[in-house]
Amino acid sequence: MKTNDQLRTTALADIEHISVHGRTTGSLSPLTLFWTGSALELEVTGSELWVEVEADYDTYEPWISIILNAEPVSRQMVTAGRRWICVFRGMNERVCKNIRIVKDTQAMSEDTACFLQIHAIKTDGEFMPVKKKPHKIEFIGDSITSGEGAIGAKEEADWIPMWFSAIQNYTYMTAAALDADYRVISQSGWGVLTSWDNNPNCSIPAQYEKVCGLLKGATNEKLGANRDYAFDSWQPDIVVVNLGTNDGSAFQTPAWVDPATGVSYKQRLHDDGSYHEDDIAKFERAAADFLTKLRLHNKKAHLVWAYRMLGIPLMPAIYRAVDTYKRESGDHHVSIFQLPGMTDETVGARSHPGVLAHEKAAAELAGYLKGILQS
Amino acid sequence: MKTNDQLRTTALADIEHISVHGRTTGSLSPLTLFWTGSALELEVTGSELWVEVEADYDTYEPWISIILNAEPVSRQMVTAGRRWICVFRGMNERVCKNIRIVKDTQAMSEDTACFLQIHAIKTDGEFMPVKKKPHKIEFIGDSITSGEGAIGAKEEADWIPMWFSAIQNYTYMTAAALDADYRVISQSGWGVLTSWDNNPNCSIPAQYEKVCGLLKGATNEKLGANRDYAFDSWQPDIVVVNLGTNDGSAFQTPAWVDPATGVSYKQRLHDDGSYHEDDIAKFERAAADFLTKLRLHNKKAHLVWAYRMLGIPLMPAIYRAVDTYKRESGDHHVSIFQLPGMTDETVGARSHPGVLAHEKAAAELAGYLKGILQS
Amino acid sequence: MKTNDQLRTTALADIEHISVHGRTTGSLSPLTLFWTGSALELEVTGSELWVEVEADYDTYEPWISIILNAEPVSRQMVTAGRRWICVFRGMNERVCKNIRIVKDTQAMSEDTACFLQIHAIKTDGEFMPVKKKPHKIEFIGDSITSGEGAIGAKEEADWIPMWFSAIQNYTYMTAAALDADYRVISQSGWGVLTSWDNNPNCSIPAQYEKVCGLLKGATNEKLGANRDYAFDSWQPDIVVVNLGTNDGSAFQTPAWVDPATGVSYKQRLHDDGSYHEDDIAKFERAAADFLTKLRLHNKKAHLVWAYRMLGIPLMPAIYRAVDTYKRESGDHHVSIFQLPGMTDETVGARSHPGVLAHEKAAAELAGYLKGILQS
Amino acid sequence: MKTNDQLRTTALADIEHISVHGRTTGSLSPLTLFWTGSALELEVTGSELWVEVEADYDTYEPWISIILNAEPVSRQMVTAGRRWICVFRGMNERVCKNIRIVKDTQAMSEDTACFLQIHAIKTDGEFMPVKKKPHKIEFIGDSITSGEGAIGAKEEADWIPMWFSAIQNYTYMTAAALDADYRVISQSGWGVLTSWDNNPNCSIPAQYEKVCGLLKGATNEKLGANRDYAFDSWQPDIVVVNLGTNDGSAFQTPAWVDPATGVSYKQRLHDDGSYHEDDIAKFERAAADFLTKLRLHNKKAHLVWAYRMLGIPLMPAIYRAVDTYKRESGDHHVSIFQLPGMTDETVGARSHPGVLAHEKAAAELAGYLKGILQS
Repeated sequence: MKTNDQLRTTALADIEHISVHGRTTGSLSPLTLFWTGSALELEVTGSELWVEVEADYDTYEPWISIILNAEPVSRQMVTAGRRWICVFRGMNERVCKNIRIVKDTQAMSEDTACFLQIHAIKTDGEFMPVKKKPHKIEFIGDSITSGEGAIGAKEEADWIPMWFSAIQNYTYMTAAALDADYRVISQSGWGVLTSWDNNPNCSIPAQYEKVCGLLKGATNEKLGANRDYAFDSWQPDIVVVNLGTNDGSAFQTPAWVDPATGVSYKQRLHDDGSYHEDDIAKFERAAADFLTKLRLHNKKAHLVWAYRMLGIPLMPAIYRAVDTYKRESGDHHVSIFQLPGMTDETVGARSHPGVLAHEKAAAELAGYLKGILQS
Repeated sequence: MKTNDQLRTTALADIEHISVHGRTTGSLSPLTLFWTGSALELEVTGSELWVEVEADYDTYEPWISIILNAEPVSRQMVTAGRRWICVFRGMNERVCKNIRIVKDTQAMSEDTACFLQIHAIKTDGEFMPVKKKPHKIEFIGDSITSGEGAIGAKEEADWIPMWFSAIQNYTYMTAAALDADYRVISQSGWGVLTSWDNNPNCSIPAQYEKVCGLLKGATNEKLGANRDYAFDSWQPDIVVVNLGTNDGSAFQTPAWVDPATGVSYKQRLHDDGSYHEDDIAKFERAAADFLTKLRLHNKKAHLVWAYRMLGIPLMPAIYRAVDTYKRESGDHHVSIFQLPGMTDETVGARSHPGVLAHEKAAAELAGYLKGILQS
Repeated sequence: MKTNDQLRTTALADIEHISVHGRTTGSLSPLTLFWTGSALELEVTGSELWVEVEADYDTYEPWISIILNAEPVSRQMVTAGRRWICVFRGMNERVCKNIRIVKDTQAMSEDTACFLQIHAIKTDGEFMPVKKKPHKIEFIGDSITSGEGAIGAKEEADWIPMWFSAIQNYTYMTAAALDADYRVISQSGWGVLTSWDNNPNCSIPAQYEKVCGLLKGATNEKLGANRDYAFDSWQPDIVVVNLGTNDGSAFQTPAWVDPATGVSYKQRLHDDGSYHEDDIAKFERAAADFLTKLRLHNKKAHLVWAYRMLGIPLMPAIYRAVDTYKRESGDHHVSIFQLPGMTDETVGARSHPGVLAHEKAAAELAGYLKGILQS
Repeated sequence: MKTNDQLRTTALADIEHISVHGRTTGSLSPLTLFWTGSALELEVTGSELWVEVEADYDTYEPWISIILNAEPVSRQMVTAGRRWICVFRGMNERVCKNIRIVKDTQAMSEDTACFLQIHAIKTDGEFMPVKKKPHKIEFIGDSITSGEGAIGAKEEADWIPMWFSAIQNYTYMTAAALDADYRVISQSGWGVLTSWDNNPNCSIPAQYEKVCGLLKGATNEKLGANRDYAFDSWQPDIVVVNLGTNDGSAFQTPAWVDPATGVSYKQRLHDDGSYHEDDIAKFERAAADFLTKLRLHNKKAHLVWAYRMLGIPLMPAIYRAVDTYKRESGDHHVSIFQLPGMTDETVGARSHPGVLAHEKAAAELAGYLKGILQS
């Protein structure tokens, strides 16, 4: 191998022009990427560029995708350890390239040892200013928004990071269609009130105000996941909430018993299969309260509750919750959008939306959000 | 990181059930993958699997894609050195998986130091028999068949391996549609008679009988690239020849002067832009002779000359060449198929066919080949 | 012209096997087709078949489409008078054909002279039993459901029957996809509470219990349009209500003043553009009452309110109305479905959904209704 | 019915601005439309317009399509007799409309009594100048080009005019995509040398120089079908020849015996299924001679032989024929284009290309012809 002796290593904190996507603590020494779709973005000249990454985990390894001039060129597992990954070689050194190193897998609430960091860049090029896009969108969701099953064969059944994608994902596609920067807050199995299996600790709203509050344990504490998130640093134009799918499942699954207290939690059905009034009311209250919390922190954003892709049973409750929020707050910058449903033709791995379902959802959602951005 | 102490390393040569795609010397100690689309295929149980690869190069690094149960899950550059790459982790150990490690980039005739090898597998699973597919297809071509430009933004202009793909490629797609095993012999810029710039040394037919004859230098010599290829080991049902695009360009580009002899080579045009009779005749003779050579080594294959995607100027000459071959040989198992042309909507990087152009070509070609396989 | 002397004329009332689609008075002497999508269906052998039609109007002429073996073969204006129209000639006399003569234009509430009748059939074939389809669907709607603009150039601005289609229409397409017989109750500009311009007389619910109550004048009285409709004669499995679009417009248009009483009607907006609570409540009350009326007459049908294609502003009110209806009635066989929106790519004539918008709506709606039919 | 007393009848010959498409004798008193796709085109203001047509036939009735502002609005059988057909009513009288009355069915060589004529127009509007399109294309073909099977169910087997379409046809679509005026010369079953069943009298080239030479009998003689065609009146930029499909079939069908002479005609196969050299040579000679004839009459046109949709067996012979023509003539403005093949998904009635096959062929052909028009 011919070595390129023009390469110089620069710690992230020493790079003049840098853009970080996704919620972080603000630290660049190193940069910890918590959420799926989080990314380091650079504009660089030069013929060659390497990125120094570090990862660890007990169970669920992180994956990254590399985007070069807005086109995905690489996707790979990042195994434990610290190492240099080559992003490009042999390119025209005078031409400026846009690169994004994107975390392809969600924050892993079940693996307290899991993290992904970026330490430094090695290149023979110069860093140029990174252009901000004209719009900002925050997506909040569950496994659908985490891109679970967007990669992999239909018969895959293992719950492993490989099947997750931040790129074959309606969030990435919608943001690209609208020329928007975006962030994602998402977790498979979680809901507004409880998880799919009635666990009230798995509530996205409860963790919304932390940098990445669903990550527990000493490592994540040290990395700052549980710090208060500085909402002022990034105010979106639109917040898309794609939650409710797991809250709907909770009505169909057994009770969850808190091992610490012995208390049992269950969203109940009547004998005729209809939702118990008290329990659907709990969901509605939680949804309305979440809207209040979102408005508290996102002063100017239009709030859009986007629901479906995997069924639509809670839509009436979501409409009631939004009505309640509007009535209580007097705030009218909130609306509901029904996403297209997944079909036999568009299913991916693990019975979750495949890439075709994400493309269809993105096309419809982008059309709807475009109207909001233009109004 | 929790370590999996059940992992055992096995050299390729010691694996009972193994399938290798693409022309090789037959060696598994290690396995050298020469051509794009070449691959190691395994059926394995187990929860985790790693592959030990080794690469080197002066200029053009190899890339690989990983296919799991027929779905692409990873694509990455393989930088110089020998290392373990994790293919999967955390899967159900009792379920058998099909994996393919595919060379995503062509043999690099311009880089005598370039190679990609696979040494060993590390897994906690068992190797199971790999099923052969019911059909075999060989594709022979140039940059189109090498998938140049199938990945990357339209504005990309650098000639680098990153823009090549064996997967976003009509060869892979056609074979998948027909449930066929396949091999690829291809090189950007090369033709039947000469390269795009009139170099007569860049002729695919001249190298066809070697394992990978276009690779030169001591390293490749040692790896066996220049050994006679054992055609008996793999007899295809169909040979697709997608050549002619660069032979057409040779009429439009300046003469090539052999630096060793000072002899000048040029496919000439008349003043009115039509092809010079003598030179088009040379192309036709070369094409007919290539068919003769193909038949010599592929006794039972239907030969299909598939041409277009980037223009169609040599089609009349190709028809004449096939007529000549048929007349001289009495062999009628040869035909010509016009591929769909690339359009502004389907162009990829470097003004080459993008993934949409490959998908369209594969759909049409697979439809045509299906008729041949059924007859 | 060679005359076919085997042709025999049979009055509709004398045909043993006949199927009529759409609400009628039951009379076949002649058969009056009131609503768009209404049709005469026959299964006939024979080489040739003619149908005797009669039409009149002051302003809006009727159009028909002819469907042969489920494929549209002809579409034509029916000008005033009584005449024979040839449906087919020269066919294999032994083969049985399915034919449908379909009214392509809506009942014209603005033209009291307009009617379309079928008197007789002339053929050399035999009438065979007409198969009933396994499902029955009723569609209730406005201009979208009347197929306004589904035919014609985008620049067309005249309000004329030519631009209406019962075939390039989501109702026809949805029914075909689900293998269902269907009926349509629809009128351009009408709504649940008022028309697009606040006229409370243009309310579909008010006319729902008559055969075709929105047709006025002596001619229609004689034809039986105002008779009570015999709901027992045809009980649908699903009723799709696609109303609300014009009720939404009423908030944006000037008041309507009843010329008889001088009373002014207006759905009001607040200064900030939000809906006046009293007026949106009136709409909700009307929508809930309509569901009650639908349930009264359609005992076993699942009721689906399908809304969008031309905006979505009343969706929260529709959800509230359905909630109210469910609470008051205890009936849970009712749901809401958001149709895909029309886009710049799918717009037709008169700024209404074109054929592509209808195809997309049908694909989504049919997928949703399929789930209901299977449950 | 309210009568429009502003309507005035004008004989075609008295209309100042008129455009006729397709080969005619030049007579407008009346205008006889011979070929499929032939049309009367007008630009008119006014609220209402009627056209007076006359038809007769023994077996095969003509059909027409009506195009209003470039969108098809009506399609109907024209039964024997002379009558007025209403084209539009109730339109804005000040707006100018473009209308085309198009013959939807081919010249019927098997029915000497068949004709379609237009006598007059009745309107309250004014005739405005009709714009010529920037390009002119002539299409020459067989049943594919006649649109046989482009309408109707897949199971249809009767050979009747109903299944023919000039609009759901690659000729209409290609011309529309290229903004071209166009003409069609076509006949089901006919070929270059013989018909599908070896009849040498059914050769398009033999009739090419007459207005519509394949129409026989006294009526057609009187209508001028057999007059020499005035090629000077309309010189195309491109001539597309879509012939060869029936010449290919002739090798597979029994001999045709001339009832007058007892002479037998047969394109022969060898025992191994290959074409007999003498007979394929006859086809090639006929094809080359046809190109010579086309060039004689179309001085400036690029000649394109477009072949496939229903198989490709004669493509090598067509390439040889074009080579022969080029060599003999020195003319290089001729090329060959392979159309996309019909598939199970795109088949229409009578095992012929359906509308999807025509759309695909038009997209590919228009892309190819665009390159020629721009060069």
